Amino acid sequence: MTTRHIITLLTDFGNQDPYVAAMKGVILSLNPEAVLVDLTHDVPPQDIIAGSFLLSEATPYFPPGTIHVAVVDPEVGTPRRALAFRDQEQYWVGPDNGLFHLVFRDSPPLDLVSLENSEYFRGSVSRTFQGRDIFAPVAAHLSLGTPLAAFGPTVTDPVTLPWPEASFTPEAVRGEVVYVDGFGNLISNIKGSNLTAWLAEKSHVVILGSLTVNGLSSTYGDVAAGEFLALVGSHGYLEIACARGHAARRLGMGKGRSLAVVKAN
Amino acid sequence: MTTRHIITLLTDFGNQDPYVAAMKGVILSLNPEAVLVDLTHDVPPQDIIAGSFLLSEATPYFPPGTIHVAVVDPEVGTPRRALAFRDQEQYWVGPDNGLFHLVFRDSPPLDLVSLENSEYFRGSVSRTFQGRDIFAPVAAHLSLGTPLAAFGPTVTDPVTLPWPEASFTPEAVRGEVVYVDGFGNLISNIKGSNLTAWLAEKSHVVILGSLTVNGLSSTYGDVAAGEFLALVGSHGYLEIACARGHAARRLGMGKGRSLAVVKAN
Amino acid sequence: MTTRHIITLLTDFGNQDPYVAAMKGVILSLNPEAVLVDLTHDVPPQDIIAGSFLLSEATPYFPPGTIHVAVVDPEVGTPRRALAFRDQEQYWVGPDNGLFHLVFRDSPPLDLVSLENSEYFRGSVSRTFQGRDIFAPVAAHLSLGTPLAAFGPTVTDPVTLPWPEASFTPEAVRGEVVYVDGFGNLISNIKGSNLTAWLAEKSHVVILGSLTVNGLSSTYGDVAAGEFLALVGSHGYLEIACARGHAARRLGMGKGRSLAVVKAN
Repeated sequence: MTTRHIITLLTDFGNQDPYVAAMKGVILSLNPEAVLVDLTHDVPPQDIIAGSFLLSEATPYFPPGTIHVAVVDPEVGTPRRALAFRDQEQYWVGPDNGLFHLVFRDSPPLDLVSLENSEYFRGSVSRTFQGRDIFAPVAAHLSLGTPLAAFGPTVTDPVTLPWPEASFTPEAVRGEVVYVDGFGNLISNIKGSNLTAWLAEKSHVVILGSLTVNGLSSTYGDVAAGEFLALVGSHGYLEIACARGHAARRLGMGKGRSLAVVKAN
Repeated sequence: MTTRHIITLLTDFGNQDPYVAAMKGVILSLNPEAVLVDLTHDVPPQDIIAGSFLLSEATPYFPPGTIHVAVVDPEVGTPRRALAFRDQEQYWVGPDNGLFHLVFRDSPPLDLVSLENSEYFRGSVSRTFQGRDIFAPVAAHLSLGTPLAAFGPTVTDPVTLPWPEASFTPEAVRGEVVYVDGFGNLISNIKGSNLTAWLAEKSHVVILGSLTVNGLSSTYGDVAAGEFLALVGSHGYLEIACARGHAARRLGMGKGRSLAVVKAN
Repeated sequence: MTTRHIITLLTDFGNQDPYVAAMKGVILSLNPEAVLVDLTHDVPPQDIIAGSFLLSEATPYFPPGTIHVAVVDPEVGTPRRALAFRDQEQYWVGPDNGLFHLVFRDSPPLDLVSLENSEYFRGSVSRTFQGRDIFAPVAAHLSLGTPLAAFGPTVTDPVTLPWPEASFTPEAVRGEVVYVDGFGNLISNIKGSNLTAWLAEKSHVVILGSLTVNGLSSTYGDVAAGEFLALVGSHGYLEIACARGHAARRLGMGKGRSLAVVKAN
């Protein structure tokens, strides 16, 4: 963990307003050598579950020492805490509202602290834009080598999310759609590795509302254009897609919808 | 003002077309060490007032020496002038059409010049894309240390905007909505610091069409989800918001709408 | 061709999902010094023709040694080949599906290879996301100095596109709209330089459906707001525009529509 100069940003601010740019300006003012990378700024507004999913999807590909700033923060300015932590490889900074739930699940946090030392904040802290006034400057100071312990006291009880876990029984695997991507693919909370173990190469069907798909495909091009398919996507979760089409619009289905996998025998 | 290698870009080009990328390619061809930061490319098409507001909101957070290239330019290719200037801290480059009005208001321009020395333009200058052919190369040359005076003659009469200034009388403060952000917050031209001085801690109401809000909140979480509130936002202006909602859509109101603050008794 | 550290990305992934960020993380993990530039991620989904047009429009402005990664890839995971090549100046990496057609037309490929050496891929290659698992790491290795020949065998028959070429006869030039930009300008496949030679300064009209425009303008400001005009745009092709308006919406026309230029007497 030598260099720590890559700083990524994930927010629900969109790209139209000057909010993301303000955060970047604050970071570059403190550390002109920081390398800024946008994860996405199109998290659905105030959707902490989607933000947590997107954060956990994007961050594993970044090098050791990367600092991830995440801001989906409907309670900004209330007494909700602000956090920073690391795992064996990377760093995270953001509000204590469940946004880091899936990061914690994949890798327990080390040196988890509550951001309370205002020495590392902007001179005047707005109650409505802590991304600019707290999270951005803390990330910049982290990139300059400030240890986590300097930012505030240790925390042991971060907020968790009511994240829907998939259930596995001998008869069926049940889960739900947790994210619809820009291609219209309906991504579930059923992990491909767990599903493969459960299937044990038995034939099976995937059921989503009135749609029944036989077996899993390997890639979108395996079926004809316009046909639906089920596959374990690049993120490692079971998804329903439509070859060269937009499954969510075609099916009129979205986030929260239940799906099941049952053996076909 | 030692390093000047950060170059920001603000345009109304959107992110779909290759226009922004062409500007970045031109800059990196002249100065491969330039650090490029997008302010936004989603200024409403040809909306100079919105562009001026967004530019004045985003630029103060950047470090000394930063160069800001702004292109919202409905008159491109006509005889309208092209400008570059600095203030005590930063540099700006773009068309002379009012886009810099709020930058000028906040800090008078120094070394304001008309871009006329074609030695610093691309070899062939298109009459429809001066962002690529004039503004991008001038910014790159600035970042390499070329002094402003080299680009052309001094200008003393830059174009100004019919920017709506708020009015303060003993009875009321009157202003209008100048920008609606991506969360749906209706941002006015009433400066928070001026409003606070005028209020002198007296109780008051904010009136926007049929909506009346009692007093100012400190942050969005101060009221229940779905309720409207008034507050001085992170940009320093009075705004009307809806907690966890989209005020502009809920109210059916937008830019140009009048609002007023009156003392309550 | 000394430095090769600028890497651009063009995809149809959009900016909402974590896919582009995953590619960037993979590149930065292999080469932390890479400078990443987005060309666009809003290529219409799976539209190889639009992707080819946008790629050929944006890449000429980048410096020698730039590496362009392009992913519009409806057949990902099928046996379609993956390619890398260079011309005298720059490098390209992406699927063999016609996406590079216009790049090849403008400058014949050198050292064109099929990406088959898995030593340069990510450890596990998903069948649905080769942007992350093949194209990103190959681009990173290119930027570190790996020669093209190391990635796989030479290819001589890359896939071509049914790109519509404009036709020139003594009576008329006929072409079609190949792209509608974010301003609503209808951009044709009729090259400005060819058109100018054909016109030989004779007066002429441009016909698009029921619209007839007299002669070519030099820039959008040449006609009154709301009027239609024809001009050779900054990309070098004939386009139909509407001054301060959105020509495509006003005319109800889009991609694929025929247009003609005929001499006026």
